[in-house]
Amino acid sequence: MAVTLKDVAGRAGVSRSAVSRTFTDGASVSARTRAKVEAAAQELGYAPNALASSLTTGRTKLIGLIANNFHNPLILEVFDLFTRGLQDRGLRPLLVNLSGASDPAASVRMLRQYSVDGVIVASSTLPPSFARAFRSAALPVVHAFGRHSLAPDVHVVGIDNVACGRIAAETLIRRGYQRVGFLGGPESATSTQDRAAGFLRGLAGAPVSVSYAADYTFDAGRAAMQRLLQTTPAEAYFCGDDLLAVGALSAIQDTGLSVPSDIGLLGLNDMEMSRWQNIGLTTIRQPVAAIIGAAIDLVVATIETPDLAPEARLFPCEVIERQSLRGFS
Amino acid sequence: MAVTLKDVAGRAGVSRSAVSRTFTDGASVSARTRAKVEAAAQELGYAPNALASSLTTGRTKLIGLIANNFHNPLILEVFDLFTRGLQDRGLRPLLVNLSGASDPAASVRMLRQYSVDGVIVASSTLPPSFARAFRSAALPVVHAFGRHSLAPDVHVVGIDNVACGRIAAETLIRRGYQRVGFLGGPESATSTQDRAAGFLRGLAGAPVSVSYAADYTFDAGRAAMQRLLQTTPAEAYFCGDDLLAVGALSAIQDTGLSVPSDIGLLGLNDMEMSRWQNIGLTTIRQPVAAIIGAAIDLVVATIETPDLAPEARLFPCEVIERQSLRGFS
Repeated sequence: MAVTLKDVAGRAGVSRSAVSRTFTDGASVSARTRAKVEAAAQELGYAPNALASSLTTGRTKLIGLIANNFHNPLILEVFDLFTRGLQDRGLRPLLVNLSGASDPAASVRMLRQYSVDGVIVASSTLPPSFARAFRSAALPVVHAFGRHSLAPDVHVVGIDNVACGRIAAETLIRRGYQRVGFLGGPESATSTQDRAAGFLRGLAGAPVSVSYAADYTFDAGRAAMQRLLQTTPAEAYFCGDDLLAVGALSAIQDTGLSVPSDIGLLGLNDMEMSRWQNIGLTTIRQPVAAIIGAAIDLVVATIETPDLAPEARLFPCEVIERQSLRGFS
Repeated sequence: MAVTLKDVAGRAGVSRSAVSRTFTDGASVSARTRAKVEAAAQELGYAPNALASSLTTGRTKLIGLIANNFHNPLILEVFDLFTRGLQDRGLRPLLVNLSGASDPAASVRMLRQYSVDGVIVASSTLPPSFARAFRSAALPVVHAFGRHSLAPDVHVVGIDNVACGRIAAETLIRRGYQRVGFLGGPESATSTQDRAAGFLRGLAGAPVSVSYAADYTFDAGRAAMQRLLQTTPAEAYFCGDDLLAVGALSAIQDTGLSVPSDIGLLGLNDMEMSRWQNIGLTTIRQPVAAIIGAAIDLVVATIETPDLAPEARLFPCEVIERQSLRGFS
């Protein structure tokens, strides 16, 4: 049988209300009573029930993590960091799967029903209308991996994708590549748009081909590179995601060409498989731990202070050297 | 402002109690009242709040998914299927990260605090003491990917790992391999123990080497194969997990040997990367969708009927042909 608040009150020799107050943030209780209650709770193995405490606080301590791509390995790191980060703070991580969702209003209804205190949207492809709909519904929301703007509707935490595209351009130029290409994800994704813009700006007019894969997937990257190989490919490609880069790598290897001696590849993300020795992808790392940590801090702050002005927290990227680009020229 | 039960009652011209009963499973309400309430709820965009409904039902509709390995890509499929499966049933998926956890009692306290109605343990490496501790705490629990036994303590859903080891042995024998090896995960994992037992039995006395990797990871598989390559390696290895097999593949390729002409590799799981054309791993697929579907069904049934006798639901595995074993001999 589960230990109840009444059992703890009996063992501690205090009122039920005293037990309840001991486990309610901000409620008044004497140090002596608190010590008695905590000792009794520990002896009996009592854990205050989130449901019971949410009745007094009006909070459920449930934070939703909204994802719509369960095929990109990077999201595994996100889930790991998100769940640990919430557990450390005594919050409860609820997973919300919006793969294929297209109606922001339906998602708002679902989140209402879920009784979350706030949500973190972890996606670069979910349309911005979702995060805005959550905010209009007075739901504390942070958009991780979202597009940063000067007049943001919601909190955004992530990288500056334009700056990241520029780093990619500099990286390829420094190695002496002259005809380069951008192999982006879906053209509708803000992350792809911004990475392309930064890349083109960083090349300052050097010749460049721009192509898009249908999705941020291995298959789409492979198919896109197969099309490129039917004409004269560029000397090196900046791929808007590691999965695209590995798909492109496999297409190149299939034709008997080799990376980096025939074609160079630069990825983005530094997913776990990129460091596999039989992949060896040179890539631009997103600082996922910093991004998720900041997203949790910001959603918690917004729950405490709902009218917090939307802010952007951007973290720098870095190039991780492996074997898919030739050396410095 | 959020729409409340009172707003819906006003619009529908019924009592608040009638609205509450409309949204409570099993509560009595006339068809006419229900129709009025549902129309008003739809017009106003009202969604019954899980917190409010849990007060009347004593249920939170929260189901915990307990995982302790956020590095195996297979778990991404598990998360995707689990969240969709629960969403379809109007349940709420809570993610519980037990990476590195060693104290079952502490995990029970955490789950109590989380107010879950039941949990699915999705792990082949979490000690069985955890699932037993959850059951002793009267928490409906299903162990997915766990060890099946004739006298189970808790519901188990998964594959028969002994049978799976036997399939691996038959697969290698049919291709004419004579000196074979087992490259398992951690020796303490029941999945590794059972796969080894089935493999040895299936070989019926044929010469076999048995070795273990420290973890179910790429790095551990690579390190284990590097050790094996320092002596005379077997002709083919059954690896107890795809990640181990891909790590082994990279170690073999590093020495200039090739797969499958010099050494054959057979994996287990069919994680997404195994079908990447530059990996091409022949492997034994776990039917993850069937396993997670059954686990959800079983945890829901146990919540309804807490004294349901523990049962095992086992699903067959199949060999997925790719390029890491030589053809039939």
